[in-house]
Amino acid sequence: MQEKGISLAVIQRLPRYYRYLGELLENDVVRISSKELSERMKVTASQIRQDLNNFGGFGQQGYGYNVEYLYTEIGKILGLDKQYNVIIIGAGNLGQALANYTDFERRGFTITGIFDVNPRLEGISIRGIEIRMLDELENFIKNNTVHIAALTIPKLKAPNVAKELVRMGIKAIWNFAPIDLNLPNDVMVENVHLAESLMRLSYNLKALEESNENNKK
Amino acid sequence: MQEKGISLAVIQRLPRYYRYLGELLENDVVRISSKELSERMKVTASQIRQDLNNFGGFGQQGYGYNVEYLYTEIGKILGLDKQYNVIIIGAGNLGQALANYTDFERRGFTITGIFDVNPRLEGISIRGIEIRMLDELENFIKNNTVHIAALTIPKLKAPNVAKELVRMGIKAIWNFAPIDLNLPNDVMVENVHLAESLMRLSYNLKALEESNENNKK
Repeated sequence: MQEKGISLAVIQRLPRYYRYLGELLENDVVRISSKELSERMKVTASQIRQDLNNFGGFGQQGYGYNVEYLYTEIGKILGLDKQYNVIIIGAGNLGQALANYTDFERRGFTITGIFDVNPRLEGISIRGIEIRMLDELENFIKNNTVHIAALTIPKLKAPNVAKELVRMGIKAIWNFAPIDLNLPNDVMVENVHLAESLMRLSYNLKALEESNENNKK
Repeated sequence: MQEKGISLAVIQRLPRYYRYLGELLENDVVRISSKELSERMKVTASQIRQDLNNFGGFGQQGYGYNVEYLYTEIGKILGLDKQYNVIIIGAGNLGQALANYTDFERRGFTITGIFDVNPRLEGISIRGIEIRMLDELENFIKNNTVHIAALTIPKLKAPNVAKELVRMGIKAIWNFAPIDLNLPNDVMVENVHLAESLMRLSYNLKALEESNENNKK
């Protein structure tokens, strides 16, 4: 598989292809043309062909893409042919929401530990996983393989906890705290900044209202 | 204020500028040079100057940017000089997490209603907001101004509920369901696709491991 030189923009789009192809598979669709996929995904067919040609062109002229093959190959590219153990730091609502999300498990991400500092949460189980106290984290990481740590703790605590996680050997952090973590380059950070997402919505809503007002004039 | 022709990429970056400027303000920083801001944000100074010059150049040579002015102006561009009433559809963990997030309120987004179909949740209050049953939604929207609806419900229910919301007059949807909503063009949708975010992390983790393996050779 040729993966060199794939642009970041294409990589960013792959999870969405993967989701659509997964839905097609669930509906027993065996093959799909770039045109059909284009209509479903609201992306131009030429964009789809360009994107998917990066991976050696799974499509065949006049036949379309083999859905299962493409799904499997994109899955491999995304690293989804492996299993990932995920721990959640912060067992508040958001941490519990992530722990309860069965969708992740289907994709190979298994929640193996949940940690918090609140003693009232100690021992409570979420889908069979007991909430542990944060001071048990280091031992847990020593004795269990952990691939990814999700950070669902307050902004002011996140940078230090992230540094501790890196010291303990964690190489991938899924950060929900509204702050950028300054970590070494060999640590992968994926941010989910909810407030920023909400601001993009208010920007678009404002733009919509202004365009409506202009149309009235 | 000149806002025409601002690229989507710049708009996408504005919330992050806003967050950093807000932090500077909290720390009583009055002004900042593009160089300093560049070091904090890990963006090149020339990128910062280019981005911020879109709004008429708030910076002054040798003086830097006035933090409060820039914060206020970017806030206006993002529509944050207004108040938004937000309802949450789906009072599971994720919906409750959003309702408990005080950060949004500080930015002008007030949660005014929470809805669910589970009768066991009826009447439970989250930060003073009672969970209502979904069949009360239409009346609620008739009698209260609602700017934004957050959708934290299962994937299969989301498209229909979204359509109903649009029928009831909602123009902005913050969608957490892992599905694309096909709505009219005058309805703004902002998606938070958590599984896709997690896949970007597994992709990067895989790329990191491969590069480590290659370095060992």
